[in-house]
Amino acid sequence: MIGPFLAALAGDAEIEALFGDDAAIAAMLDFEWALAEATAEAGLIAPEAAAAIAAATVGFTADRAGLAAGMRRDGVVGPAFVAQFRAAVALPHRAAVHFGATSQDLVDTAQALALGRLCAVLDGRLAAILAALAALKAAQGTLPLMAHTRMQAALPFTVGDKLDTWTRPLERLRARLDEERGRVATVQLGGPVGTRTAYGAGAAAISAGLARRLGLADAEPWHGARERLAGFGGCLALVAGALGKIGADVALLAQSEVGAIRLAGGGTSSAMAHKANPVAAEVLVALARHAAGLAGTLMQAMVHENERSGAAWTLEWLTLPALAVTTGAALAHAERLVPAVTFVGGAD
Amino acid sequence: MIGPFLAALAGDAEIEALFGDDAAIAAMLDFEWALAEATAEAGLIAPEAAAAIAAATVGFTADRAGLAAGMRRDGVVGPAFVAQFRAAVALPHRAAVHFGATSQDLVDTAQALALGRLCAVLDGRLAAILAALAALKAAQGTLPLMAHTRMQAALPFTVGDKLDTWTRPLERLRARLDEERGRVATVQLGGPVGTRTAYGAGAAAISAGLARRLGLADAEPWHGARERLAGFGGCLALVAGALGKIGADVALLAQSEVGAIRLAGGGTSSAMAHKANPVAAEVLVALARHAAGLAGTLMQAMVHENERSGAAWTLEWLTLPALAVTTGAALAHAERLVPAVTFVGGAD
Amino acid sequence: MIGPFLAALAGDAEIEALFGDDAAIAAMLDFEWALAEATAEAGLIAPEAAAAIAAATVGFTADRAGLAAGMRRDGVVGPAFVAQFRAAVALPHRAAVHFGATSQDLVDTAQALALGRLCAVLDGRLAAILAALAALKAAQGTLPLMAHTRMQAALPFTVGDKLDTWTRPLERLRARLDEERGRVATVQLGGPVGTRTAYGAGAAAISAGLARRLGLADAEPWHGARERLAGFGGCLALVAGALGKIGADVALLAQSEVGAIRLAGGGTSSAMAHKANPVAAEVLVALARHAAGLAGTLMQAMVHENERSGAAWTLEWLTLPALAVTTGAALAHAERLVPAVTFVGGAD
Amino acid sequence: MIGPFLAALAGDAEIEALFGDDAAIAAMLDFEWALAEATAEAGLIAPEAAAAIAAATVGFTADRAGLAAGMRRDGVVGPAFVAQFRAAVALPHRAAVHFGATSQDLVDTAQALALGRLCAVLDGRLAAILAALAALKAAQGTLPLMAHTRMQAALPFTVGDKLDTWTRPLERLRARLDEERGRVATVQLGGPVGTRTAYGAGAAAISAGLARRLGLADAEPWHGARERLAGFGGCLALVAGALGKIGADVALLAQSEVGAIRLAGGGTSSAMAHKANPVAAEVLVALARHAAGLAGTLMQAMVHENERSGAAWTLEWLTLPALAVTTGAALAHAERLVPAVTFVGGAD
Repeated sequence: MIGPFLAALAGDAEIEALFGDDAAIAAMLDFEWALAEATAEAGLIAPEAAAAIAAATVGFTADRAGLAAGMRRDGVVGPAFVAQFRAAVALPHRAAVHFGATSQDLVDTAQALALGRLCAVLDGRLAAILAALAALKAAQGTLPLMAHTRMQAALPFTVGDKLDTWTRPLERLRARLDEERGRVATVQLGGPVGTRTAYGAGAAAISAGLARRLGLADAEPWHGARERLAGFGGCLALVAGALGKIGADVALLAQSEVGAIRLAGGGTSSAMAHKANPVAAEVLVALARHAAGLAGTLMQAMVHENERSGAAWTLEWLTLPALAVTTGAALAHAERLVPAVTFVGGAD
Repeated sequence: MIGPFLAALAGDAEIEALFGDDAAIAAMLDFEWALAEATAEAGLIAPEAAAAIAAATVGFTADRAGLAAGMRRDGVVGPAFVAQFRAAVALPHRAAVHFGATSQDLVDTAQALALGRLCAVLDGRLAAILAALAALKAAQGTLPLMAHTRMQAALPFTVGDKLDTWTRPLERLRARLDEERGRVATVQLGGPVGTRTAYGAGAAAISAGLARRLGLADAEPWHGARERLAGFGGCLALVAGALGKIGADVALLAQSEVGAIRLAGGGTSSAMAHKANPVAAEVLVALARHAAGLAGTLMQAMVHENERSGAAWTLEWLTLPALAVTTGAALAHAERLVPAVTFVGGAD
Repeated sequence: MIGPFLAALAGDAEIEALFGDDAAIAAMLDFEWALAEATAEAGLIAPEAAAAIAAATVGFTADRAGLAAGMRRDGVVGPAFVAQFRAAVALPHRAAVHFGATSQDLVDTAQALALGRLCAVLDGRLAAILAALAALKAAQGTLPLMAHTRMQAALPFTVGDKLDTWTRPLERLRARLDEERGRVATVQLGGPVGTRTAYGAGAAAISAGLARRLGLADAEPWHGARERLAGFGGCLALVAGALGKIGADVALLAQSEVGAIRLAGGGTSSAMAHKANPVAAEVLVALARHAAGLAGTLMQAMVHENERSGAAWTLEWLTLPALAVTTGAALAHAERLVPAVTFVGGAD
Repeated sequence: MIGPFLAALAGDAEIEALFGDDAAIAAMLDFEWALAEATAEAGLIAPEAAAAIAAATVGFTADRAGLAAGMRRDGVVGPAFVAQFRAAVALPHRAAVHFGATSQDLVDTAQALALGRLCAVLDGRLAAILAALAALKAAQGTLPLMAHTRMQAALPFTVGDKLDTWTRPLERLRARLDEERGRVATVQLGGPVGTRTAYGAGAAAISAGLARRLGLADAEPWHGARERLAGFGGCLALVAGALGKIGADVALLAQSEVGAIRLAGGGTSSAMAHKANPVAAEVLVALARHAAGLAGTLMQAMVHENERSGAAWTLEWLTLPALAVTTGAALAHAERLVPAVTFVGGAD
């Protein structure tokens, strides 16, 4: 989140942490541990090696400057991480570390863990917003309200009718997000060129074992097949978009001349003390538009050349975590905005 | 498709027809007929009125210049169409035409019919491409091929391994498209402000009856809740993106210096007669990028203000049919490209 | 413009014609004529050949189905056009046709001619809008009007103050468009790989002669250097965006509850006869958003691989003419909208 | 820059600092100082007040948590900053602080200062890249090289010809960036609704005085007229795009099978020790695509409703600084990449 104090308005510390360095290091350690267990189970590395690898994950301290330097040199943090972690394992077992895997297995799986956690956070926020909408409907649902079409007063309906138009898409999107979760919280295990060659006949079992240990769904290698990630990003933008629609409606209904909504805690103005600005509502609109743009750019990354494209992969990194934060921030704003809304009614 | 002869390269006559004037007029007539039947069934209009309306749909000839003028004046073709159609119904039954509905019900439902048909066409094309990929794998799957990662030769795998990376996303997307179809091939029936007020207690039955007659799924009104349309557009872009990846791979493998693919029927050059250009492969890349952009713009339309936004709705019209044509054209190119591919192998 | 009757709302026949088949054929004939003259002047082809080529352009009738087939096969209409045109030239002079040039020279230059004409049309429309704004200011400029910030009434200013905020960006953009015109209404002449090899020492003179005859600026070959086209597209989106801002303002000020603007000729509603919808204002918003999306996608085409990228070039064709039409349609709507505006005032 | 270690690959500390909190606070202090001087010069505040304000800027320590809280509450950091700064001024002179200005004047002008500095940094990097390209041409320009069109070997040209296609767009963009600088390194001074009301007849002089003291161009208020910012963002994307084209070319020419470029310092692979990956080249492609997407989204912010739109303004903040960093990072990568390139030639 670049720009002065912008993080305070449009950031989301909880979600940024899911995609941060600490979380990534922890997830990569989990991957190496789970892979060692699974390859040992398949008889490809010794049980002692798996034990040594598991032991090394405890108390492992990454050289972060070294990881950053590796990222800059290699275009992916995997090689530097594997080298550091291997050095932390007792000498005879080092060859067993990361056995048969490639950097992309490590980094994509670590991201899958983050996306699974992201879904849980987003689901909780959606649930809170839906509860607030239900409470608002219970409190004010029968109040008459003027409906507006094409920027003109149309005919009266009720606050409940209005709230339904906000609620239904969020309910549907909550279910959709859960489906998308199943598509992206999946293991990545393909080896250098996606063929799991080093695992021989044990490949499927190792992938399943890795997935089970990490709480992810099993999946065939998807190094260059990124439509599930792009589709997930699209779903995030849908959530932000549905909230942007609420923001637009709130800002319109709270206009001085309309006065159909009163907002608690509006923003202040340096020059006009009488104003109470619908800040959160406007921010929801901005976040929705930013998310739509990021989703479109993420979809550009589907043109993923050959078995692994550094260009397409980097483009995903530039957009998907940003989309997660943008959508998360929108949910957080909506969580605060809905309870601040009081309808004034006045359609008669 | 603007631009000289561009339609020949990037257009899709079959899909353009689904979103054309003829299809729209037919679909709007179907809507008015089915609505009349359903409202008559609910006892809200007389059976004679429904019969008169049904009769009027037969042989109805639209004044197309009038519809275009109405589109320009009203921002939506609905009012002009309803006026024309009403005039074609016997005088005593005119009030029963379009009973309780609004232009958006008519136009959104007509589009839903087009989207349902679109899905059938796309599914057929996906099936054909998958069959061609399977045939190619059967013919050449065991041939060795050099895999490439980060734009460098990596390790050998096989043509079958390569084809799997093209096939799996398309299989998944075929299933996803079917799910998305269920989300958008739905009836729209809300009346002026989305509350179905004119239908009273019969509202749900009328909506169900309308849906049944039109072969659409029933749905609550969604005048301002457009996330399903935006999500559908996203899915189209995923399909185009997965094909764009195939196009990028083919163009890379067919490079003069790589020579791992030989293409039948490559394009000619006005200045270099020795060249055989991978035209379809390049076009797939272009269509994927265009689709990604259109999907991102369509998502901007989710910020749909109030009960009906002319701005957001128009933005959907500018992007969703174009996305359908773009994705359809990509499928058509891929249908021709895959059978033109012969792998040369050469990873040893 | 796909979608039922959408052309009536968002199309622009005058600008579509600039990018249509007829215009392209005429421009390509102009190119071949001017190139023949310039190469003859440089002594590279015989004067008789140039005369024969000039003669052949008169009454040349393209086989359009053949051009479309060539477009489909070659990914560019150039080779088919050159073959057809060459066949129309007297046998001994055929080798002199298209001498030293490549398809891209022909097609890019033809597009440059279209862009030059486009700028003239857009400039005229901008001038008309600016005149209408000036007239509105003269008529109503001193009327008090409530200013709005962050969707709240702020403090009163005047209609003239408001109109200044619409006028100034359009004035600046008119000047900017003229600058951009100089960047894209340029000749393209590079030969097969952009080195003008066939022209030897006469290359610069031939390029200058070609440019002079076509009324274009001279330029070094820019086969793969597309930043001027992308920048031009960006400028078109700026124009559409500035008009979208006017549309948004008009729609907001014309709201029933605000009533600061009265619009002549608003759209009708099929269900609510009392409404007068701000159709043109909403369409301006939609066109601005579509243009922004297209401009972003066009910028993706700057990643133009090697000396000529079919993928990037096709992406330009998919977006730049569409941007021209979108911006043109916005100007046409604004030309009608501004004179339809009457401010009611009422800030006191 | 969210995402594990992504900053090391795609961040730009120097440019991030230009848009960071420290720079913003310093710039806002400069604004308040310069505004005080200019309003004192015009006789609107007392010279003692201006002196007190100038004194208060020295050693002023912002309460950053308070600024962040203000940002969250008000949607803009201005009100909280002005309140904090006012409290740091001797009591009798507090009313003179920020005289006649609004938050947007403060924040837009602070951003204009950042953009001016940004241009200087970008210009320096462009100069360095151009020098490296010139050195490469001097060293290897006459080497033969195979040109490629439509992903096929075409005809031989030279390394110098190739380098010209990289160099010319960057030279033009360097000049264009300088023009754009003049459009955005401008003062913003409009007061609450853009009319400079508090300044009366002294308005133009105060604006000029403010601009002069800050080293910015003078300008009429542009609160809602944002086309110059959007155009600037477009120019940044053009720079990133031109570099993305170089990245794509380098990656293609450095392919194992092509071998026309040898890269010093390529990235390593965790699984394939023999590979030297063209990391910087791939990152250039990713940054170009991200920049194109951000530019398109920034253009959405031109639909800026009324006299100040919180939604549109926030969208600018979400995209413009990110664009600056993206373009800056691309320039930094290109600065390292060009000297690492050695052409191998081999077109014969």
